[in-house]
Amino acid sequence: MRILKLGGSVVTEKDKPFTPNTPNIERLAREVAASLPAPMVIVHGGGSYGHPVAKHYKISEGYKTPSQLIGFSKTHQAMVQLNKMIVDAMLDVGVPAFGLSPSSFIVTESRRITELDASNIKRYLGAGLIPVLYGDAVLDTQQGFSILSGDQIVMRLAASLKASRIVFGSDVDGVYTADPKLVKEARLIPRLSLKELDGMVKIGEALNTDVTGGMLGKVREAAEAVAAGVEVILVNAGVAGRVEAALCGEKVMGTVLTR
Amino acid sequence: MRILKLGGSVVTEKDKPFTPNTPNIERLAREVAASLPAPMVIVHGGGSYGHPVAKHYKISEGYKTPSQLIGFSKTHQAMVQLNKMIVDAMLDVGVPAFGLSPSSFIVTESRRITELDASNIKRYLGAGLIPVLYGDAVLDTQQGFSILSGDQIVMRLAASLKASRIVFGSDVDGVYTADPKLVKEARLIPRLSLKELDGMVKIGEALNTDVTGGMLGKVREAAEAVAAGVEVILVNAGVAGRVEAALCGEKVMGTVLTR
Repeated sequence: MRILKLGGSVVTEKDKPFTPNTPNIERLAREVAASLPAPMVIVHGGGSYGHPVAKHYKISEGYKTPSQLIGFSKTHQAMVQLNKMIVDAMLDVGVPAFGLSPSSFIVTESRRITELDASNIKRYLGAGLIPVLYGDAVLDTQQGFSILSGDQIVMRLAASLKASRIVFGSDVDGVYTADPKLVKEARLIPRLSLKELDGMVKIGEALNTDVTGGMLGKVREAAEAVAAGVEVILVNAGVAGRVEAALCGEKVMGTVLTR
Repeated sequence: MRILKLGGSVVTEKDKPFTPNTPNIERLAREVAASLPAPMVIVHGGGSYGHPVAKHYKISEGYKTPSQLIGFSKTHQAMVQLNKMIVDAMLDVGVPAFGLSPSSFIVTESRRITELDASNIKRYLGAGLIPVLYGDAVLDTQQGFSILSGDQIVMRLAASLKASRIVFGSDVDGVYTADPKLVKEARLIPRLSLKELDGMVKIGEALNTDVTGGMLGKVREAAEAVAAGVEVILVNAGVAGRVEAALCGEKVMGTVLTR
């Protein structure tokens, strides 16, 4: 069982509110089609759909005023719209994708998933369908509601569904020795162990910066899955062919996390 | 707790595929707004969204061929699109509606709901939100998948959530003594007891026809809720003000089912 995470910066134009990156969505649908029939789950981020609405209504901070209820629903509606486009693109190329709505069955407590009945997702997989979930506005037993990231869903599903491989598709090539946007000599790290990662986290904390070029949060969230033996690979989903290769287990430019 | 069912023939142009009845949707959103803040759940039908797709791929008959998987998802996608429009219309007039996706948490066995965890719906109600569900394509443990009607969801939720009143909004005024489209003398029955209903069912079976003008299936499905003491009223949601009056418990043209 494979899990593919598609970052919001890949499936949307991140700086233009409510703008899909249609060429990327259609190309990635074809790459997923080429990697079938092995079972998989897809999770995508919010990009310019969920984020601006959630920010405007301060949804991630939790319930403060009744007017936020409208914003909570609007955040979800934005994600429904994005999810619909992605699933439609998959169906168009023959991928039996099926959109599942996280807020309909996932609850968090202080922003961490407490309730997620994976049995329904297993049923979809068993029927030969490819569930497509997304980062969503969900109810939170502690703070009323919260924003649940796609990354957290990925990690939870990896454990529940005993995933063998997780492919993180973002708009950068992988983990770097330094931020490639700032440091010219920054090099991509093709394989990164949890121990090396720990070292980078410590350097980052000492310098009060993310030395990896923004990938540290994602990588730390993935550490548990890596420790449990799941193959985790970070690739640039904005470059044609990389997601497909990573899904198929072929050698590809990116960063593989190892124990 | 009130449950409002909006028939597919009310929220869509039933004979034009993928055509919403926008004036009805917007007016009904205002009628719901006027009936707040008492808690409620809304369930809507598929009309010209879900039905033509489900029919084309023979979804209600269950899984026969892999090509149906695409159709199963497309049926759901059509309903997602309709649900999004209805929830958006509610949000526009200040109703804190929230779309919940039945296929994400409901499973049927031989077309009857076996799994429906109502605790999440109770949480939405507790947060001051108005869940909006819909008839959907869902997984079925017996036949692979099936079409779950909005009416069946209404009845299940009425029991789980201990509803006090169910308002069925369709495109007819209520239950008639005969089919008003065929029999000129047909009269609307303002109050109908379960015993009288039984009599009409028997006449209908003997004549091999639905003497009530198409409302018999709905009424029979509602009998259990009526027997449990829930107030059930059938009104014409195509006529302004009737849904609002029924939601508020005011006297209105329609048929009230009694024990």
